[in-house]
Formats: sequence, structure tokens, C-alpha cells
Amino acid sequence: MTLHTDRHFEDELQSLQELLLRMGGLVERQIAHAIESLVERDSELAREVIARDREVNRLDILIDEECLKVIALHQPAAGDLRFVTTALKVNTDLERIGDMAVNICERALELNDEPMLKPYIDVPNMAKEAQQMVRTSLDALVRRDTALARRVIEQDDVVDGYAHQLYRELLSFMVEEPKTISRATRILLVSKYLERIADHATNIAEMVVFMVDGKMIRHAASLPRGGAELA
Amino acid sequence: MTLHTDRHFEDELQSLQELLLRMGGLVERQIAHAIESLVERDSELAREVIARDREVNRLDILIDEECLKVIALHQPAAGDLRFVTTALKVNTDLERIGDMAVNICERALELNDEPMLKPYIDVPNMAKEAQQMVRTSLDALVRRDTALARRVIEQDDVVDGYAHQLYRELLSFMVEEPKTISRATRILLVSKYLERIADHATNIAEMVVFMVDGKMIRHAASLPRGGAELA
Repeated sequence: MTLHTDRHFEDELQSLQELLLRMGGLVERQIAHAIESLVERDSELAREVIARDREVNRLDILIDEECLKVIALHQPAAGDLRFVTTALKVNTDLERIGDMAVNICERALELNDEPMLKPYIDVPNMAKEAQQMVRTSLDALVRRDTALARRVIEQDDVVDGYAHQLYRELLSFMVEEPKTISRATRILLVSKYLERIADHATNIAEMVVFMVDGKMIRHAASLPRGGAELA
Repeated sequence: MTLHTDRHFEDELQSLQELLLRMGGLVERQIAHAIESLVERDSELAREVIARDREVNRLDILIDEECLKVIALHQPAAGDLRFVTTALKVNTDLERIGDMAVNICERALELNDEPMLKPYIDVPNMAKEAQQMVRTSLDALVRRDTALARRVIEQDDVVDGYAHQLYRELLSFMVEEPKTISRATRILLVSKYLERIADHATNIAEMVVFMVDGKMIRHAASLPRGGAELA
């Protein structure tokens, strides 16, 4: 019977993992469509993304319930328990990434009502990096691959670099032409949403490293020297 | 022996709760000091808040480990398990509120280097609301009080109202006087950080309602009619 139970438990962990990947794929597409609605000035698409947030939210509820069920029924031990509690937290990050896609669409709807300020070249480039970070952080989770997770954490600097560049560019737009201010601040907010998506992916990657190594790199700088290993 | 074990378990839940309240009190003070460093133009205080984020991070690690220990050792059943997994998620929200206080201080350090744009009246008022939301959401958690949790959720509109008002005000500053743009965008970011703190408190409150009632109000609008009760 133990074999049967273990098999069942493995299946449930597997299906939990697949749910997380489905959620990840969904929010990745939400980001891509949100940016497309901005760049192509497609307000219809923006409204579709906002409506599809219902799916993200349903999946969020489902994954949380699955995590609780796995813990309650199988009482997993150390490593597996850490995976399931990590899944609980990763799920929240993914749901909030979905919220960021909605926020981007809200700004897109406002921006699409006004003449275009400038071609949004940096914005889609920045979005591509952020999307890739989300995908890679989930790959790292399911493969328990800390090297991959660390690549995500490093990639966050690329996104921050784009954000900084865009900020300076928008600032000079606003200074030279005050009538661009309202549009420029909205684009600035879009860049902030993308930064937050990258932050969420970074959080996921840091949790993966902690889950696998027991190393709390997310706060490594906060710990006394030599105290970075807690588990 | 069961009695003894139960007692021990109750003690651990109690101490977990106290840790969360300690974390809550700490991040609340971090917000208050961050805003003080901005309003009083006290860069020394800003640097202290940034340094004290180490404490927030240490407590974050400790609380996560406590949650895992409680689950692994006591294998709590439905309601208690839901409390511990909620604690895991609440802890993450509190840690990120701490990060927002650090971000406010970073903007304060930049703003304190330039002449003051205007008296920051709305900013501290907005911060007080956000702080109160954090405190009340944790009260709601430890008392399992959904009415209190719902008050937090309603209060989010007050913070959003302040944010909107501040945005319009800063926009008109920038339009009338382009040399204020750099400072105004920094204050705009501070207001965004406070909005995010209020969002985190709202998330906590929504999780409390779900924990107590099994009602997923955080996505109530996403569910088909009559489908708001999942548990």
C-alpha cells in the first residue's frame, strides 16, 4: 500500500507542478498581450486581457487549494513540504504578475486615447526580458535548478537598466515639452509595472535557491558574515 | 500525552502569531520613519531605516522557518493548516511592505538633496491610512475577525483617493513649472509605494476572510454568480 500511496503523492506533486506551469504560461501571455495592446494601440485587446484576469484568479484559487490538499492528505516531509510551501508563495507572485498585466492595459487604454508620444521601442524590449525571467524562474522551480535561478536574479539588472534609461528619456521629454507630461508619466508607470514583474520573477528564483540549497540568498546581504546558510 | 502535545501545538501557534505581530509592528515603524525622513528632510533617519531592513529580513526568514516547523512537527488539520499557510503568505506581504519603506527612503535621500517642492501634506496623511491598514489587517488575522478585515479592504479606496489627488496635483506642478518635473516624479513614486503598501494590507485582509469563512473574496468579482464560496 505504501508504494501505491507514494505513487499517488508523486502524481499529485506532478500535477501541482503542471498547474504552476499553466499559471506561468497564462500570465506570460497576459504580459505579451498587454504590451501588444500598448504598442499596436489595440484597445480591444487591452480589454480582453483585463477580462482574462478572471482565469488567472481562478487558477490562483485552484493552486492554493491543491497545495493545502497535498499537505493535509500526505503530510509531506522536509524537502517535499518545502516544495509545496514554495508553490503556495510562487502562486501568489504569479497572480500578482497577472495584476501587473491588467495595470499595463489600463494605462494602454488611457494612452491609446491620445496621440502617440514616441515609438515604444524600449518598452517591448523590457517586457521581453521580464517575460523571459518569469518563464526561466518557473523552469528553475520544476527542475530544481539553482544555476538557472541565479541567472534570473542576474537578469533583473538588465530590466532595471532599461527602466533607468526610459526614466531619463521620459524626463527629458517632459522637460522639453510639458504637454507630453501626462503621457510620459503613464509610460513611466508601465515601466514600473514591468520592473515589478521582474521583481516577482526574482522573488520566485530566490525561493527556488532557498528550496533547493536551503540557502537564503534573498537576504544574503542582511545576514551576519558566514550566516547565509540557515537550513 | 495528547493534551500535552495539543498544548505544545497551541503554544507554537501563539508564538507564531506573536512573531507576525512583531514583524507587523516593525514594518509599521519602518513606514512611519521613512515618511518622517522625507517630511523632516532627515537623510540620517532615511539611512537608518534602510539599514534596519536587515531586521525585517531576519524576521522574515525566522517566521518562514517557524511555519514549516509547525507543519512538519504537528501536521495541523484543516483550520490550523489554513492559518499556518496564511501566515506564510502574510509574512511575504509584510517583508515586501518593509521593502517599500526602503524605497521611500531612497527617494527621500534624492529629494532631500534638492529644494523642497511643496509641503508634503497629503503624503503623511496617505501614509497614516496605509499604516493603519497594515495594523488592522494583522489585528483581523490574530482575532480571526472578518468584519475588521472587510474594513481594511474598504479603506483601500481612501488611499487610492489620496493617490489620485496627489497625481493630479503633481501633474499640474510639472506642467506649470518644468523644473519641478524630476522632484514631482519622485514624489509620485513615493505615492505609488504607499499605494502598494495599502495593496499588501488589502491582500492580507482578503486572506483573513478566506481563512475564516472559506470565502474567496479576493477574486469575488472573478467568479460566476453564486460561486464565491469555494471551501
